[in-house]
Amino acid sequence: MLITIVYIGSPNNSLRDVSREYEKRIKQIGKSIGLKNISYKSIKHSNKKNITEKKEEETNKLVDEIKGQTLNILLDRTGAKLNSLEFSKLIFTQTGKNENIKFFIGGSDGIDQNYFKNFDKIISFGDLTWPHKIFKMMLLEQIYRSITIINKHPYHK
Amino acid sequence: MLITIVYIGSPNNSLRDVSREYEKRIKQIGKSIGLKNISYKSIKHSNKKNITEKKEEETNKLVDEIKGQTLNILLDRTGAKLNSLEFSKLIFTQTGKNENIKFFIGGSDGIDQNYFKNFDKIISFGDLTWPHKIFKMMLLEQIYRSITIINKHPYHK
Repeated sequence: MLITIVYIGSPNNSLRDVSREYEKRIKQIGKSIGLKNISYKSIKHSNKKNITEKKEEETNKLVDEIKGQTLNILLDRTGAKLNSLEFSKLIFTQTGKNENIKFFIGGSDGIDQNYFKNFDKIISFGDLTWPHKIFKMMLLEQIYRSITIINKHPYHK
Repeated sequence: MLITIVYIGSPNNSLRDVSREYEKRIKQIGKSIGLKNISYKSIKHSNKKNITEKKEEETNKLVDEIKGQTLNILLDRTGAKLNSLEFSKLIFTQTGKNENIKFFIGGSDGIDQNYFKNFDKIISFGDLTWPHKIFKMMLLEQIYRSITIINKHPYHK
């Protein structure tokens, strides 16, 4: 299994230390559930001034990254609001050891809703707005927490 | 106006750099709304083994920090789920320049619900579980974002 985080925006290293720590922990504990790697793919934001056109261009680029035999999860404020246990179940009990997971994060103007149907799941981390650099770290933390839940590791308590 | 973040647990510096950056920005932009300082008060967690007793002891210590002429806000997963605009309105339009704000964060076992009535507001940042060090940084980010919303500063877009 591979986990990939696909996002609109430039690679941002502001939270590098804490993110690397979570990546390390995910790779370590992830072996037990067949996780081989976690990686990123950044997609440059659109330069279009018109917001509708910008969103469409960015969404199209994300949709191009959707793959078969992969659980393609869009993170969007309008999605299903889960607690950490439900998030863990959703991403790991629906995924076989050989099935990959891709998380998709839109740009600052969000995702064109016409393309929602292309993703397997749409998940919300709540109604609050977060900057990208913090949101990516939050996602890493929840991925790590999910694996600790599956493994009954004491961290998640 | 003073903002204080009161929490159960030991001071944790893992996210010091990013937290300091937000504290600095909050102090800078906060002047415009009469904010004089943002500070922390950590309260040692209870050593009681019985969870009900532990929660009660910790909650009692938090309740002791509730002050008059202060907007006392408990952060708890069961509270009202707001978006960033609503959070901003709640904390700043209800608060005069001379009224302080205290945010309260419980320990790993949460808060004794019998004491909920002692707080002015109970706010939830969503259903997901977060470690303390990340949650405190998330709170700082939302406080900063709130002030940028009040000030119509471009950050929050």
